[in-house]
Amino acid sequence: MIATKAYAAQNATTPLGPWNFERREVGPHDVQIDILYCGVCHSDLHQVRNEWKDSIYPMVPGHEIVGRVTKVGAHVTRFKVGDLAGIGCFVDSCRECDPCKAGEEQYCVPGNAGTYNSYEMDRKTLTYGGYSTDIVTDEKYTLKISDKLPLEGVAPLLCAGITTFSPLRHWKVGKGHKVAVLGLGGLGHMAVKLAASFGAEVTMLSTSPSKEADARRLGAHHFALINDKAKLKELRGRFDFIINTVSAPHEYSTFLNLLNLDGTMICLGAPPVPSAVPAFNLITGRRSIAGSLIGGIRETQEMLDYCAEHNIVSDVEVINIQDINDAYERMLKGDVKYRFVIDIASLKKS
Amino acid sequence: MIATKAYAAQNATTPLGPWNFERREVGPHDVQIDILYCGVCHSDLHQVRNEWKDSIYPMVPGHEIVGRVTKVGAHVTRFKVGDLAGIGCFVDSCRECDPCKAGEEQYCVPGNAGTYNSYEMDRKTLTYGGYSTDIVTDEKYTLKISDKLPLEGVAPLLCAGITTFSPLRHWKVGKGHKVAVLGLGGLGHMAVKLAASFGAEVTMLSTSPSKEADARRLGAHHFALINDKAKLKELRGRFDFIINTVSAPHEYSTFLNLLNLDGTMICLGAPPVPSAVPAFNLITGRRSIAGSLIGGIRETQEMLDYCAEHNIVSDVEVINIQDINDAYERMLKGDVKYRFVIDIASLKKS
Repeated sequence: MIATKAYAAQNATTPLGPWNFERREVGPHDVQIDILYCGVCHSDLHQVRNEWKDSIYPMVPGHEIVGRVTKVGAHVTRFKVGDLAGIGCFVDSCRECDPCKAGEEQYCVPGNAGTYNSYEMDRKTLTYGGYSTDIVTDEKYTLKISDKLPLEGVAPLLCAGITTFSPLRHWKVGKGHKVAVLGLGGLGHMAVKLAASFGAEVTMLSTSPSKEADARRLGAHHFALINDKAKLKELRGRFDFIINTVSAPHEYSTFLNLLNLDGTMICLGAPPVPSAVPAFNLITGRRSIAGSLIGGIRETQEMLDYCAEHNIVSDVEVINIQDINDAYERMLKGDVKYRFVIDIASLKKS
Repeated sequence: MIATKAYAAQNATTPLGPWNFERREVGPHDVQIDILYCGVCHSDLHQVRNEWKDSIYPMVPGHEIVGRVTKVGAHVTRFKVGDLAGIGCFVDSCRECDPCKAGEEQYCVPGNAGTYNSYEMDRKTLTYGGYSTDIVTDEKYTLKISDKLPLEGVAPLLCAGITTFSPLRHWKVGKGHKVAVLGLGGLGHMAVKLAASFGAEVTMLSTSPSKEADARRLGAHHFALINDKAKLKELRGRFDFIINTVSAPHEYSTFLNLLNLDGTMICLGAPPVPSAVPAFNLITGRRSIAGSLIGGIRETQEMLDYCAEHNIVSDVEVINIQDINDAYERMLKGDVKYRFVIDIASLKKS
């Protein structure tokens, strides 16, 4: 077994703190990764605090993991010791259902093995995430990471990157499309970068005038304040797509009217309260509301390769793991541009 | 001007009764139609009673009109005196916006001219519908009607038929697809007939066991009671499409879970109360909720031709216009299989 240092939540109410546990030995298809950086996703906070009512403790959060391979199993073919590697939101899946066979393991019918707060496919062995020094995973669920990009900016691509990349590709968003991005946070800033890089005309919809300069720097061509009623009226029927990254409760209907004929609002955030949808707003423009969940392994690799080729990373603020509880508080206030990433060196030397 | 007998609502609360008015003279592009049958759509009742808060009185309802051409304008090329002809939900549109140019006049950006309770494109001349002896329309907004089918069964195709045909075609529903139809009424019974004729495997979702035999007669391959929780659980992830024809308030979330990966629920009815949509139910299966509104003129003609070729009509109960107020009450109770159609002969001889 592999002794591993980590930061864990012991229950829903006390701060994260140091915790030691053991990873499994490296099996014939496994790689062992020395974790270098781990991104901090808002879902870490939701689960640490049991806001989704499915938390298992102790919990080691973290599913935006990059590091370096330190050991490979006998049958491993895609990785060798010294390679960079990444882990996203899941570490295994049933491999037999239609979505798994189609490479869409995020929609695995019996349910995949989440990277943390979940069980391996034996449904008995708890999984622990990337706020830790080492991780052992099957190479099939491990991503190749380019050495061209700063690793701390790559880590959030494993969740925020693929969550925005996948729907943009699925709905074939590109040149000639008018795309609005609702919400400028971890997901939103990646949506702007990726949609713009695909050739779409991007409008940032935000509540805060202070975000305009940043939105434009990230690649947005236009900026609109969603509390400006005259502006919203002007934008009616404007967009082919709205990438809705907001997880806070909000009214969908306001934004549905901004969609053109056959326009689609793609929801990536799941507000705790369902939003009321007047069918009328859908019917009168053959509009759709859709959802999309991260992405499969094959598409995650495509996204990483695309980002390496196009020099796209997440905008991050690197923190030491000792500052994780403060970072959670700042995240709650939206005080991060646009993703905290833990430098795992701070854990190793603690 | 053309003297016309009709049944009209004089306000939101009194029953419909006889009313005489004048149609415009036949212009160079117009056809005059001697109305034979007019279907009774639930939206007639909504508008007669001002439930959509946009009613204009006196109101002559009716937008499922078939009849025979009695006069044509000098420049009319598609119709001659004696031809059968039909009118659907609109009688004109701007002809210049993108949807109009694409033949999707139902989505006309400045708004088309509804067949009744609306204005001609001059935005001044009120339009009156098919509960009347005659109508004058531009031939471009007039449909060719085959003489192969019983005309009373054809009338409802002009609204109920195209409203279900259009989304089935738009989403390319056919062989290999599992389709659920929610609600067995005017729209629902056409959805079953058309989806089955397109080769889809059709399941009727209903609250009433008494509808099973009828659903199967109409072409449904399966029948499920939506208040049977065990059955709903069994149907999870089953359908590629749900054609939602329900206009009464209902929860979308129950039905979203019946959709497969990438499944779409297409809403054709607009409940008066918006339904709560948990984004989670969309995200976890990349599901969509969409809306669709009637169809354009070109597609309505395609639908009529298709129905003539495949011997598809609406199941109707023919009434005299003197019984329209009773028919409304029966419609409210769902006591009609599946569309009332007015025999306009009863108006002519009154």
